[in-house]
Amino acid sequence: MDKETFRKFGHEFVDWVVDYLDSVEDYPVRAQIKPGETLNRLPDSAPLVGESMEHIFKDFREIILPGMTHWQHPSWFAYFPANNSPPSILAELLTAGMGAQCMIWETSPAAAELEEKVLEWLRQMLGLPEGMNGVIQDTASTTTLVALLTAREKATGFKSNRKGFQEKLFVYVSEEAHSSVEKGAKIAGYGTDNIRRIPADENFAMIPAHLEAAIVADKKRNLKPACVVATVGTTSSSGIDPLKPIGEICRSYGLYLHVDAAYAGTAAILPEKKWMLEGVEHVDSFNFNPHKWMLTNFDCSVHFVKDPGSLIRTFEIHPEYLKTDVDALVKNYRDWGIQLGRRFRALKLWFVIRSYGIEGLQKVVRKHIHLAELFKGWIEEHELFEIVAPVHLSLVCFRLNDSRSEEELNILNRELIERINQTGKVLLTQTTLKGKFVLRMAIGSRTTEERHVHQAWEIIVSMAKDILGKNNVNI
Amino acid sequence: MDKETFRKFGHEFVDWVVDYLDSVEDYPVRAQIKPGETLNRLPDSAPLVGESMEHIFKDFREIILPGMTHWQHPSWFAYFPANNSPPSILAELLTAGMGAQCMIWETSPAAAELEEKVLEWLRQMLGLPEGMNGVIQDTASTTTLVALLTAREKATGFKSNRKGFQEKLFVYVSEEAHSSVEKGAKIAGYGTDNIRRIPADENFAMIPAHLEAAIVADKKRNLKPACVVATVGTTSSSGIDPLKPIGEICRSYGLYLHVDAAYAGTAAILPEKKWMLEGVEHVDSFNFNPHKWMLTNFDCSVHFVKDPGSLIRTFEIHPEYLKTDVDALVKNYRDWGIQLGRRFRALKLWFVIRSYGIEGLQKVVRKHIHLAELFKGWIEEHELFEIVAPVHLSLVCFRLNDSRSEEELNILNRELIERINQTGKVLLTQTTLKGKFVLRMAIGSRTTEERHVHQAWEIIVSMAKDILGKNNVNI
Repeated sequence: MDKETFRKFGHEFVDWVVDYLDSVEDYPVRAQIKPGETLNRLPDSAPLVGESMEHIFKDFREIILPGMTHWQHPSWFAYFPANNSPPSILAELLTAGMGAQCMIWETSPAAAELEEKVLEWLRQMLGLPEGMNGVIQDTASTTTLVALLTAREKATGFKSNRKGFQEKLFVYVSEEAHSSVEKGAKIAGYGTDNIRRIPADENFAMIPAHLEAAIVADKKRNLKPACVVATVGTTSSSGIDPLKPIGEICRSYGLYLHVDAAYAGTAAILPEKKWMLEGVEHVDSFNFNPHKWMLTNFDCSVHFVKDPGSLIRTFEIHPEYLKTDVDALVKNYRDWGIQLGRRFRALKLWFVIRSYGIEGLQKVVRKHIHLAELFKGWIEEHELFEIVAPVHLSLVCFRLNDSRSEEELNILNRELIERINQTGKVLLTQTTLKGKFVLRMAIGSRTTEERHVHQAWEIIVSMAKDILGKNNVNI
Repeated sequence: MDKETFRKFGHEFVDWVVDYLDSVEDYPVRAQIKPGETLNRLPDSAPLVGESMEHIFKDFREIILPGMTHWQHPSWFAYFPANNSPPSILAELLTAGMGAQCMIWETSPAAAELEEKVLEWLRQMLGLPEGMNGVIQDTASTTTLVALLTAREKATGFKSNRKGFQEKLFVYVSEEAHSSVEKGAKIAGYGTDNIRRIPADENFAMIPAHLEAAIVADKKRNLKPACVVATVGTTSSSGIDPLKPIGEICRSYGLYLHVDAAYAGTAAILPEKKWMLEGVEHVDSFNFNPHKWMLTNFDCSVHFVKDPGSLIRTFEIHPEYLKTDVDALVKNYRDWGIQLGRRFRALKLWFVIRSYGIEGLQKVVRKHIHLAELFKGWIEEHELFEIVAPVHLSLVCFRLNDSRSEEELNILNRELIERINQTGKVLLTQTTLKGKFVLRMAIGSRTTEERHVHQAWEIIVSMAKDILGKNNVNI
């Protein structure tokens, strides 16, 4: 592709992206296709001769786009948000254009130093302890795994790396923790049988007394507790594990403490939400995802550690072809995680934080929290619905409850969410809390306004009435 | 940022990227800054109030850009290339704009199905066995780790995942294998002590007889061989482990065989290079990086497996909040690797393959191989230099050799590469082969032409003469 064709399509694609984000509301939130539909529209083999960008772009719009679920839709209330934003997209364009591979300082010094600085900004913004060092990982799954590996190495005197993981170590998490802890425990070799699932209280927060009891019981049996993963903002209900007592327990018994605040961490930039992190001074590592609620394109997961030495000792390698003269003076982030190769992810974070400013980001987060409060109020006032978990932030867990048996309610609510999502106008996801099938309304898309939340509410009520009408006749 | 400001800067950034790539030759290849220089030019805290994009973009050009090493420079001969290309950058722009998170089919059906189809195209293009299934991982490090984990689970009857990794298993690699095998063996819990480093022959290829002897010796001692990682195109010298005899050994003794062809894999699209993969039918998994030599932006590492069932059994998790109605009908790639969250990486691959066509990609790879042959010829004809490893593809390993002691030669060559790189006009990296300090000339940037290779050659010769002149006086 010659320079001017590249420029022409670059401009055309920018216009497309700007217009897409401006009109994304007009698309159904969820792709309206069946398994195999896209697959069947694609040729079975690669073309021998190059095709024109006109043709490729046309196919993108006609074949790919109708099969996409629109994560940037203002009526996206599913999972957690994965926001992008204009400054973030602009930075991603520069990143793609430069095509730098940021594995070590020498291969892109400014990228390494910008990463160091921007993460120091974030540390301050969240109020994490002075001296914690940050690194950008791809996802919270990876960060949890990295923490579990660091804990494993610390617990075995950094011997597993060398001699193989031969010990049986135990990991403690709330029963509400994310599945990535289970996945990480598999990968790191702990094994899922060696995860202790600590009961959560009625607010879906880990009960510290149960944690301590479990650790004490294991120690009595000569088992080896190694690591606690606490969650600030659980996936199911945004439950908040109390870091202070958990941290004190970890200190007393010598356990590594990792905090997964993937979604909720962003809210710690608000003074009124800093309470969530009380006790964070006891933490060994802390993670949150700017790619969720901080308007930064996926992927960008931020990992803070108290002791970079342990992290580096877990991962470092020193082949001749990667040595450089400045190794002793700089941060080589390849030794701070799993992958050798690294994208320049600090750039988009820098663009976003500078473009919005701290106050601009606070405003966005406060807007979502306000909308969740509003939605919560509507639920509470309505006789057919109930709130199922505290609304700490922007996630509202609720269900239809007209006083039938739990089993019937689960069936009804399962039907309800399917009917809501089939409209294509909104997208919610579900979870299970203490055996109850629950709908999750996760508010947090950059462009979500009150009217979108209100429209969702109207759809929810109307579908609920439909289902109840039908079921009352049937039963 | 309002819509029209976004559009304006989008166009401006596209122009910048087009012009940057068109003139990247004018920059020094390697950043001309010292550790801390970028860091010191960045403010210590985030701005409270948002800043204008004019200001941010200005700082990008004035603070960040001078600290970047230019991976897309046509005189980039370091490490391996990490090419981007106009169609790939254009696709990355769309990907960033849509901001889709592709963890499971339901969250972006077209992304999942495009990934499936494009990887089938690649399977055909490389001539991998029919029926192998592909998935995109981020890097070869991750893919090697994923393979080591799958091997671990297969060798323990999928029990390590559940009960913890308690067995001592052994991994076999050539002494020339990439450090990511060592890192993966640490992470997966094998331990570096349980890696058997099999000697390589004079062509830096694993010697199958030594592999077999090591496996037999371990089995006699009741140790458990689990996995062989073979390399097609080693990092140091592009050595090619013979897959046929290695594969037969793995079949005979029941070992898992993973192939790391991160760099060289792309060359298998050439009929004249298909010999590299002879015996690939014995392979359990195979990896190569389109982000190296196939003009696709980092990150994009392609992973093919013979038995997706084993891979999925190693990684799958099933929390309620991730369940969907179509799980039985579709591929949920979150279960094919470590991360839950996934970028839409198939799009850029689709854009690149369609835009160039198979023949277009072959032409690029052939050009680089031709340039390497040319450079090799110049080295061979010059009395002061020698070729140190076979030139199978586009990597030339050479050194200055004027018949001094090996120790002196190592010192001289170390000085030589530093002097070459200090010019800022080219960038090479080094390695060690059988104790010899060696310079690596890795040809493979998209825009590298004969004149760039020739300029590099002139610099190399001139610097060598300088050093020899100086040293002859000194010694």
